[in-house]
Amino acid sequence: MWFICEKELLQEAINTVQKATSTKTTYPILEGIHIRATKDNKVTFTATDLDLGIETFIETEVYQEGATVVNSKLFGEFIRKLPNDKIIIKMENNNVYITCQKSEFVLLGNNPDEFPKLPTINENSMYEISQDLIKSMIRSTIFAIAQEETRPILTGVLFEVKDGKLSFVALDGYRLALKRYDIDSENEISAVIPGKTLNEISKILETTDEKAKITFTPNHILFNLGNTKVISRLLDGEFINYRQIIPEEYRLKVKVNRNELLDSIERASLLAREGKTNLIKFDIKDSNMIITSNSQLGKVYEEVNIELEGENLKIAFNSKYFLDVLRIIDSDEIYLEFTTNVSPCVVKKCNSDDYIYLVLPVRLVEE
Amino acid sequence: MWFICEKELLQEAINTVQKATSTKTTYPILEGIHIRATKDNKVTFTATDLDLGIETFIETEVYQEGATVVNSKLFGEFIRKLPNDKIIIKMENNNVYITCQKSEFVLLGNNPDEFPKLPTINENSMYEISQDLIKSMIRSTIFAIAQEETRPILTGVLFEVKDGKLSFVALDGYRLALKRYDIDSENEISAVIPGKTLNEISKILETTDEKAKITFTPNHILFNLGNTKVISRLLDGEFINYRQIIPEEYRLKVKVNRNELLDSIERASLLAREGKTNLIKFDIKDSNMIITSNSQLGKVYEEVNIELEGENLKIAFNSKYFLDVLRIIDSDEIYLEFTTNVSPCVVKKCNSDDYIYLVLPVRLVEE
Repeated sequence: MWFICEKELLQEAINTVQKATSTKTTYPILEGIHIRATKDNKVTFTATDLDLGIETFIETEVYQEGATVVNSKLFGEFIRKLPNDKIIIKMENNNVYITCQKSEFVLLGNNPDEFPKLPTINENSMYEISQDLIKSMIRSTIFAIAQEETRPILTGVLFEVKDGKLSFVALDGYRLALKRYDIDSENEISAVIPGKTLNEISKILETTDEKAKITFTPNHILFNLGNTKVISRLLDGEFINYRQIIPEEYRLKVKVNRNELLDSIERASLLAREGKTNLIKFDIKDSNMIITSNSQLGKVYEEVNIELEGENLKIAFNSKYFLDVLRIIDSDEIYLEFTTNVSPCVVKKCNSDDYIYLVLPVRLVEE
Repeated sequence: MWFICEKELLQEAINTVQKATSTKTTYPILEGIHIRATKDNKVTFTATDLDLGIETFIETEVYQEGATVVNSKLFGEFIRKLPNDKIIIKMENNNVYITCQKSEFVLLGNNPDEFPKLPTINENSMYEISQDLIKSMIRSTIFAIAQEETRPILTGVLFEVKDGKLSFVALDGYRLALKRYDIDSENEISAVIPGKTLNEISKILETTDEKAKITFTPNHILFNLGNTKVISRLLDGEFINYRQIIPEEYRLKVKVNRNELLDSIERASLLAREGKTNLIKFDIKDSNMIITSNSQLGKVYEEVNIELEGENLKIAFNSKYFLDVLRIIDSDEIYLEFTTNVSPCVVKKCNSDDYIYLVLPVRLVEE
């Protein structure tokens, strides 16, 4: 193996595939990056942690074909610290020589045959979705996945296409986040992508309206971004029938400014946090929502202006579940829909119905 | 106690004194900020961890005198999250009420008499030194203090005025950093300031040529910055006679570009780090310095252009000790002075003699 390439190009390829490199593994080859130079002047980089696989290629001068696996962290850090200039990478007797100006790094190469192959997928590009839309759908839902592994399916995000809608759904038993868009496709699908890999995929997707081509197999999803392919395994099992959970009616509806509510809940949650339960109380009454929290160290009282349709209500929540959604919802004004103080609250945008967030209240014994 | 003040003013005062607040303490009152409002329309804030004490005041509308102690973290975070507007702070029955627009925070106040008093110091302002000069002297030396407590005096930085020179000196048994400036003062002093407090002081000092007025007592140093006073205890004991340690002669002298050397050592230290000893080797020969390091995972070879006066030399170092100084030394070209491969290397600036850094080599058994 012997090729020459610009540092920046190489750096970018490494940054991309490193997102799939295992850091904690008992299988050391997974800490590596697989490099393959081919005579069509392509160098392909691959990394995988067995859940997520990323492959990207650069076009550059290849003088000798070959493949090897190098330690991802060392290789990446050394390249990053090199000057912006041409880098020569050459393999001899299992040693990889990286040369740039007057720097030379010799790194032990590992046997490329020991590196796990990414699943072979025949691409059908069933969906073409703009990268920034996928990023936004991930960001709007991923925080609501279950953190615990007791119900593994809930640690993923549902990717569903049905009735002309693309929906991302996450839920953890206390709250649910649903983001949806119209999609021009007859193909229906329901698949659950692990949250962990989706997080990394989100970092690779660019803020651009260029399309990602998506292919599903029974066990995998593949995102084709041009020079880069990202493959994630899917979670086994059926996702919860989330449509049943979202209430269609409400007894009161509150219109409120997102920032005002966020600031008030942030202040209230300073004390709520001390109390460990994150408990905040809402007292909704006419044109005001009073938010209170207290602990042994003190208490907070906040008044927020609202527009109320319907009756008054007292209800309590885990402040974290509200903060999470208020920090990402992209609407200045939002609606909160309530029924009783033991039934879920639904958060919606005033300017669009593309987002639904549902949160369960905390039942208070004393009231 | 009852006063009104602008949020930004209050926030700044809290940020200043919080640097002295204890975070890990068995004496909970030290997690607090002492607040005292007086009828001359001043509100004074004080915090201390018993080593470092900071006091600052703001001028604002005081309606009722009084004092209390509030939890620093909660008070600070709540104020920070309030809008930029007037804040009313009022004490009633040991409760502190903080009100701003439609937010109210009630915090338990602690007995101000239980808060330790800062030492009473009659200020003589023996030295007046610009704040950015002190900051720069701290930055240039503090990284060389001892991290271990086996010789407590070495965990501090020597503040010395002698023969018309102000010097800051730190050393840990492996390296020494000395920064000095001319000072127009007949008063001589030698005192050791704990590194921990000096770090916090450095954050309070501003990048300005406004003077800090400095007063010493046998046990304390006081920096008067106008509205803010900072008092640190001094370390007991005699500092090492550092003058004896700095070699006056050398057998070879290397002139080298700081950035080139830094980049090369950074790359070499990637592998040096893996080997745990941080070992890098210099091979100084004519117009080149060759830097190498190796571990089980590979090896690095770096060539750096130099101008050499004197003989060739092979010598080895802990790369960390070189990186520390190369990251802070403010000169494009530097001198390295060597004598033998078991005697210290002296690092100096080409453009000034205000800085001396000395580092011991690592003795290699095999050579």
